[in-house]
Amino acid sequence: MSKPKILILTGSKNDEESLRPTCEILDQFGIAYDLIVSSAHRNPDRTRKLAKEAEPRGIKVIIAAAGMAAHLAGVIASLTTLPVIGVPLGNSYFKGIDSFLATLQMPTGTPVATVAVGSHGAKNAALLAVQILALSDGNLKKRLKRFKETLAKK
Amino acid sequence: MSKPKILILTGSKNDEESLRPTCEILDQFGIAYDLIVSSAHRNPDRTRKLAKEAEPRGIKVIIAAAGMAAHLAGVIASLTTLPVIGVPLGNSYFKGIDSFLATLQMPTGTPVATVAVGSHGAKNAALLAVQILALSDGNLKKRLKRFKETLAKK
Amino acid sequence: MSKPKILILTGSKNDEESLRPTCEILDQFGIAYDLIVSSAHRNPDRTRKLAKEAEPRGIKVIIAAAGMAAHLAGVIASLTTLPVIGVPLGNSYFKGIDSFLATLQMPTGTPVATVAVGSHGAKNAALLAVQILALSDGNLKKRLKRFKETLAKK
Amino acid sequence: MSKPKILILTGSKNDEESLRPTCEILDQFGIAYDLIVSSAHRNPDRTRKLAKEAEPRGIKVIIAAAGMAAHLAGVIASLTTLPVIGVPLGNSYFKGIDSFLATLQMPTGTPVATVAVGSHGAKNAALLAVQILALSDGNLKKRLKRFKETLAKK
Amino acid sequence: MSKPKILILTGSKNDEESLRPTCEILDQFGIAYDLIVSSAHRNPDRTRKLAKEAEPRGIKVIIAAAGMAAHLAGVIASLTTLPVIGVPLGNSYFKGIDSFLATLQMPTGTPVATVAVGSHGAKNAALLAVQILALSDGNLKKRLKRFKETLAKK
Amino acid sequence: MSKPKILILTGSKNDEESLRPTCEILDQFGIAYDLIVSSAHRNPDRTRKLAKEAEPRGIKVIIAAAGMAAHLAGVIASLTTLPVIGVPLGNSYFKGIDSFLATLQMPTGTPVATVAVGSHGAKNAALLAVQILALSDGNLKKRLKRFKETLAKK
Amino acid sequence: MSKPKILILTGSKNDEESLRPTCEILDQFGIAYDLIVSSAHRNPDRTRKLAKEAEPRGIKVIIAAAGMAAHLAGVIASLTTLPVIGVPLGNSYFKGIDSFLATLQMPTGTPVATVAVGSHGAKNAALLAVQILALSDGNLKKRLKRFKETLAKK
Amino acid sequence: MSKPKILILTGSKNDEESLRPTCEILDQFGIAYDLIVSSAHRNPDRTRKLAKEAEPRGIKVIIAAAGMAAHLAGVIASLTTLPVIGVPLGNSYFKGIDSFLATLQMPTGTPVATVAVGSHGAKNAALLAVQILALSDGNLKKRLKRFKETLAKK
Repeated sequence: MSKPKILILTGSKNDEESLRPTCEILDQFGIAYDLIVSSAHRNPDRTRKLAKEAEPRGIKVIIAAAGMAAHLAGVIASLTTLPVIGVPLGNSYFKGIDSFLATLQMPTGTPVATVAVGSHGAKNAALLAVQILALSDGNLKKRLKRFKETLAKK
Repeated sequence: MSKPKILILTGSKNDEESLRPTCEILDQFGIAYDLIVSSAHRNPDRTRKLAKEAEPRGIKVIIAAAGMAAHLAGVIASLTTLPVIGVPLGNSYFKGIDSFLATLQMPTGTPVATVAVGSHGAKNAALLAVQILALSDGNLKKRLKRFKETLAKK
Repeated sequence: MSKPKILILTGSKNDEESLRPTCEILDQFGIAYDLIVSSAHRNPDRTRKLAKEAEPRGIKVIIAAAGMAAHLAGVIASLTTLPVIGVPLGNSYFKGIDSFLATLQMPTGTPVATVAVGSHGAKNAALLAVQILALSDGNLKKRLKRFKETLAKK
Repeated sequence: MSKPKILILTGSKNDEESLRPTCEILDQFGIAYDLIVSSAHRNPDRTRKLAKEAEPRGIKVIIAAAGMAAHLAGVIASLTTLPVIGVPLGNSYFKGIDSFLATLQMPTGTPVATVAVGSHGAKNAALLAVQILALSDGNLKKRLKRFKETLAKK
Repeated sequence: MSKPKILILTGSKNDEESLRPTCEILDQFGIAYDLIVSSAHRNPDRTRKLAKEAEPRGIKVIIAAAGMAAHLAGVIASLTTLPVIGVPLGNSYFKGIDSFLATLQMPTGTPVATVAVGSHGAKNAALLAVQILALSDGNLKKRLKRFKETLAKK
Repeated sequence: MSKPKILILTGSKNDEESLRPTCEILDQFGIAYDLIVSSAHRNPDRTRKLAKEAEPRGIKVIIAAAGMAAHLAGVIASLTTLPVIGVPLGNSYFKGIDSFLATLQMPTGTPVATVAVGSHGAKNAALLAVQILALSDGNLKKRLKRFKETLAKK
Repeated sequence: MSKPKILILTGSKNDEESLRPTCEILDQFGIAYDLIVSSAHRNPDRTRKLAKEAEPRGIKVIIAAAGMAAHLAGVIASLTTLPVIGVPLGNSYFKGIDSFLATLQMPTGTPVATVAVGSHGAKNAALLAVQILALSDGNLKKRLKRFKETLAKK
Repeated sequence: MSKPKILILTGSKNDEESLRPTCEILDQFGIAYDLIVSSAHRNPDRTRKLAKEAEPRGIKVIIAAAGMAAHLAGVIASLTTLPVIGVPLGNSYFKGIDSFLATLQMPTGTPVATVAVGSHGAKNAALLAVQILALSDGNLKKRLKRFKETLAKK
């Protein structure tokens, strides 16, 4: 089994389902990943450890999904120099207006690559990660191009 | 000089000015405080240390002010059981819509007591802290009541 | 039976259900409370009496939940120097955008500690009240810390 | 000098200026009014007294202007059966989005007749009051019609 | 049978249901009304005629309910000097954000007394009309006061 | 001098300036137009007359610009079968959120072709009118294509 | 069978249903059209070809419907001088707030005639196209007027 | 001189200034880039060519900045498999609410990595690009870590 290159984090057990589309895309491209539930607010120590250890253990890109006052992606981004992709979840009264502003509006120095709210974003987070990995993986690049062509034919 | 009972945190030097009304109210009530600039995103380690050491060193209430995807109050709240008051700053394109949603919409288990955006909130954060301290300080309670009466007379 | 330390108010019978999570948290911590339905608009005299009598009868923190143009927390806060926690309810066409702005945007002199819209906020209002009470109750503080640890383990 | 028929209330000295257009319209129609500064939050007792005494002393319509979490019109409306017109002021970070939702979204039983944010609303509040008074004052009705005709000619 | 004093207009057959709470309140107070479906956009001539004839035939207050880019209340208000109450309906994708802004934000000279979106507003529109009629009807005033007292007892 | 093909309407003298970009584009294409100030609310009779007479006198497209609860385009559209282009103006507290919703959200049967808020929209309204006229004017079509090419070269 | 005069485009198979009201109106007026699914993002080459070939093959008006970050209408408008009507779909978390801003807020030089979100807009897009075609088709103009009269009678 | 690795695109000459912070960060890290003005709407052919040629000529990451109905990043993303970073500009009436929704809410298959509105986003876009390049450039990684440490010390 290959070493995971993508770390997928989400703040609660309930949100794991929201990340199924992310996993499906990565599976489709044969990219190994870890999917871990760790809240920025309820598990600050564990979340911190995951963020700090990601790079040393070979992770290339981190995907963090959270709802409401979504701090997960930002907290991770404050502790690593890996690219962090934020997926705002729409599970609150405000249907993601809160989570995407809390994910997107990061101050200078700590970028979070934010994608659309919900399942479109969950899939695109995986594709963005594949695009990044494909920059130094010719084989993956070929499959990414085929994927894009297939998309156009549907 | 008395030991600080309130810890006031803000994410950037530029935002210190926004907290002057907070300090003025606390000065008026003779309550000692520390005002420290420490960003949740640029200084995660220092911010964490401040949050963890607050209670042991005698702090009773923490006031955290931040703008944009304001994570400061939430990050602090994840690391302490002290009451945390969040002041959303209106210094972005969205005039605080981002910062108050990122401060207010905390998930179960990690409350942040959010007040109004900007200077009204900055003053009210201090008054809320005084109200909390006054619960176990009869003298402070008297001055708080006088303050309320004076307000009514203006 | 111990004397109530928390007064929980809501504007209508229909909203009582929204405060069940608040009660459950307080029950869990063994903190006595009164839950009373009294509208700022339909019962102005009774609401006023409840606000004015709260402190003399030993209440330490007031939690007020309301929807739409939520005035309840603000009206209570204008009549007491106790900390007032506002829970915006999301029961209108605007899903709480109206109620949280009407609760949060208090002018200088009358703070309301606002928490998230709906059930997350309802629970966090109780936890915030516990955090405040725990400042002068070592036993409660211990249980609060245990609660936070348990949360992290889930 | 004739007895005032309109009571104009505003929450703070700063907001008095916002009500000048209201006064100008009433002056133009020769309708006597009282303009009083009394905050729902800082002067709850005085505001209450003004609301309760309005009808007995001959007031027919109350105009209440406030900004931010504007509670003034709603608080007045809870204490009288006179028509209450609410003017949301745009003096906060949210340019009146907070004040008009807090004025408009009143629950069943306590109507507030809300007009536009700012100076258009301030003028229209006066005109609405004139329209109401004109229902039982034929002379006023004639002048109102002339006013409407003049408007069309401009 | 008494002559109608209130004219209730709505833009479409589908919206008639939304005005049932308005009718119930007026029935309860024994106030005669006409309820007519006439769209500002599909029936401009008929709507215009209804607005122009309202005052001559004895109508005192007009209530107009519409959704989406709600022009009905404003169009009526441009053609009469009677008080016009606007009820924004929440039947679009934007849940009334469009209809209440289109009803509320009237320019100088043409006031519309706007109430809350949906059923709360529909009831309050009727109560506001009753408050206006009660200014010159002592008997109605008494019943209005009783209604307010009953509300408080519920 | 050629007969006007475009009727440009705006609700107030102050808004005429906002339509200068519209006129400049039409001048550039040598298309005759009338620019008339007539409010939907203050001049309902005149506005109605302008809408009804537009087609008989040879107008092909109507451009209507208004701010706040912008009813002008919708009122015109209810009275004609000519294409009506709505330009929402951003001159209120809400920077055009009110005017574009009031212009855009037209119910079935009465379309308004809405363009962007402010000067971009004012220019595009003219270009859209030119595109419509060019459908039956080969010479105009050629100049429109040249305009598009020039745009690309800038 | 007559040559299509209207090209209706939508970004995905799922959105075809949303355009049924558009087709029904055009069928009712006996206007030939093509309905084609071609995404601006997944089929950029095909979409481009459709936009470029529309005018040469006799299309007079293009209707483009899309949801989320709706680019379809704008992309088409950048490649043709035909009038382009944009129908924002409300199929995202934000109920069309994203799609209508992405459709409406076009910069100078590339107008898109935007109509209401959802089925009202889908119908009105067709009616707007009919209004445009009727400018040079006396028979169609007569039927359009009859349609408007029938609407008024319903 | 080294070959450019980053392509920075913006839709108009006026927006170039908004990208100065992006260039400064890339200069600081010694990363070569091209900055080109090419509108998705006014220069569709040129924009398309730039997107298609980016990868063959060695570009690794594309940064696209646009305001209003910002289509630039999405159009680029539809034509390449390189990672595309979108910077929403706040130069419209809606202060970037339009541009970030039009950039963020991309449908499945065409991700855009969106960053904050305005100058914070402009800087973070560059840092995100550096983070991506640093995945396969150990020297750059070291400088990125030093940059993060320096940030913490400020």
